[in-house]
Amino acid sequence: MTALGPNAPLIGQPGSRHRLDTPALLVDRDALERNIAAMAAHARAVGVALRPHAKTHKSARIAQLQVMAGALGICCATLGEAEAMVAGGLPGVHVTSPQVTPAKLARLTALNERATGGLSVVVDHPDHLAALDRAALAARKPLDVVVDYAAGHRRTGCATVEDAVALAEAAIAAEGLVFRGIQSYSGNLQHIPVRAERRLWALRQLEELAGIVRRLRDRGDAVPIVTGAGTGTFDLDPEARVFTELQVGSYIFMDVDYHRALKDGRDAPPFETALSVATSVVTVNAPAWVTTDAGLKCFATDGPVPEVASGAPPGSRYEFFGDEHGKLSVPEGAPRPALGSMIECVTPHCDPTVNLHDVYHVVSGDTLVDIWPIEARGKR
Amino acid sequence: MTALGPNAPLIGQPGSRHRLDTPALLVDRDALERNIAAMAAHARAVGVALRPHAKTHKSARIAQLQVMAGALGICCATLGEAEAMVAGGLPGVHVTSPQVTPAKLARLTALNERATGGLSVVVDHPDHLAALDRAALAARKPLDVVVDYAAGHRRTGCATVEDAVALAEAAIAAEGLVFRGIQSYSGNLQHIPVRAERRLWALRQLEELAGIVRRLRDRGDAVPIVTGAGTGTFDLDPEARVFTELQVGSYIFMDVDYHRALKDGRDAPPFETALSVATSVVTVNAPAWVTTDAGLKCFATDGPVPEVASGAPPGSRYEFFGDEHGKLSVPEGAPRPALGSMIECVTPHCDPTVNLHDVYHVVSGDTLVDIWPIEARGKR
Repeated sequence: MTALGPNAPLIGQPGSRHRLDTPALLVDRDALERNIAAMAAHARAVGVALRPHAKTHKSARIAQLQVMAGALGICCATLGEAEAMVAGGLPGVHVTSPQVTPAKLARLTALNERATGGLSVVVDHPDHLAALDRAALAARKPLDVVVDYAAGHRRTGCATVEDAVALAEAAIAAEGLVFRGIQSYSGNLQHIPVRAERRLWALRQLEELAGIVRRLRDRGDAVPIVTGAGTGTFDLDPEARVFTELQVGSYIFMDVDYHRALKDGRDAPPFETALSVATSVVTVNAPAWVTTDAGLKCFATDGPVPEVASGAPPGSRYEFFGDEHGKLSVPEGAPRPALGSMIECVTPHCDPTVNLHDVYHVVSGDTLVDIWPIEARGKR
Repeated sequence: MTALGPNAPLIGQPGSRHRLDTPALLVDRDALERNIAAMAAHARAVGVALRPHAKTHKSARIAQLQVMAGALGICCATLGEAEAMVAGGLPGVHVTSPQVTPAKLARLTALNERATGGLSVVVDHPDHLAALDRAALAARKPLDVVVDYAAGHRRTGCATVEDAVALAEAAIAAEGLVFRGIQSYSGNLQHIPVRAERRLWALRQLEELAGIVRRLRDRGDAVPIVTGAGTGTFDLDPEARVFTELQVGSYIFMDVDYHRALKDGRDAPPFETALSVATSVVTVNAPAWVTTDAGLKCFATDGPVPEVASGAPPGSRYEFFGDEHGKLSVPEGAPRPALGSMIECVTPHCDPTVNLHDVYHVVSGDTLVDIWPIEARGKR
């Protein structure tokens, strides 16, 4: 078996989508390409750049599609993702989480050496900044840093406007570092279901961010990059005219939750569901359900349950049935799927679901058209 | 970086446990070896064999330790696990879930060819049996099958005693198959918290199983293997004298939930916690918590949250803080862990946690003594 898994021989065969070895993670190539094009068109229309987030797909191939559509680079949540993106030849790789320990600093400076297309990393504390500076000086190559400002749920980032401005000044003064700008990601806003409320909170947080940028620019400091926002606020942030670029991730696949949030107060969102898992019926002995071969080692379990998309009567329900199995119940009186038949389920939370799989099975219509490795899966 | 990850250069260095690149999955070698020895001693004492379950560890190396301690083989939940165990030279590989689709049958017969140490697979439906028979005949090598009988929650297996007996007879009659015995796994019992209740249910289910075996033996059929049971019922099943072997899995690592269940009504269980995740503090800017670098792509999310084991004041709490981060809160007035310091957390649900990692960092005291690949991670 190759690294692409047992389905590699099926690539290009008509009808191969329905003969896949399961469970298999599927990405609909056409929907994916339309999502990438729609976000690129939006960004061009409002005059903001895109640096999409690789944490969603962890795939150099998908990152390349995003860059080919105009993105200026790619964001990474972990250093391991950044290593995979640099290895995949991606430009403008930005690490959105602080890299703090000596082990991470050693990998970071080594990667900076290899990253000919550009590498930046966030910093959110004076001690952290000093450590980055020392590491960059020792490695004899300047390191681009972006000051992280804690919006919303305060997962990472400077706690106050004062702290952020002071840290930016320290970065500008540091010999080993190049100050590139400010990051502020409002993760807490992305899933607020009511658009008007999401908008209000987003604009409030962006006012603070705008204040930081203004103060730095008033002192004569260049702030080339102001980066942040997500799929849930992609069409709100440009109102504030603060961001130079958006860190959108989920729009390429669109999980159930994002769809609900984006739908509120508007017509259809411009993005389609592009990710699913194909699973096969392996037991039909129980009266009220059949058992399939995809369980909680195949789907993220931190959100709602997967939704049945095809292969079973309308109204069928999927539940987890242990690590490797699903329990598929059909509405009363409806025919049950046959032994060995295939079901496709929409995934509830895309990012951690993708992280459970080694490859994307790229489908177009009924055909498996390609298999793409998920190079950064599990990489920290 | 090698396939063993960024920590490979630390192997054998004194104090290396505290300098690991994080997040890192740790297994305590001494606790693991004591757990393996304790279960082996129990099995010898009650006169039952062990075929431990690889779904817990997905590691050929740990399976080898179990076999060296007397286990007669290894169970696998997926065909991909079985392929990894055969590649690792393990004998007596038994696949505990039905392998039904043409794609799986092709892989199964190919594996049967390579599995010189023995391979068996469950069957739970006449159509399934016919398909296995055809595949084995076409491959010109007999395939060992074990009839699965649905205990408890009826995830897989024949629904009634009659069906199981009839399927066993069909397996005996099938030209391409070798009937090896009966499987009955009571997954639903493993976590019933009160031991007396767990015992009652287990014995009731085992009576049915004993009835199947008796009926077959009364007809003169050999039933060499009666396999099932888990860590939660390891000391109950032998009472019934039905099983020839136990499919215990979780005892090697012991998650929080199993510990609670086993503790009830007795002194300490004979197994220790052996699995944890090391994570580092990466942000200290919020007043009430620090942020660490292990989130829901590092821990299973289908159980309770991870428990802080070391590196933070007693009473500290860990919560998920997105895909790649944890929120660590210390009791009021207690000192907060410093930026860059390391925390170790006990994992809540071992099997799906292990499936998120590529390697085990094997520690003994303060030292990283080895790194073992998790060959079957993500393998279906």
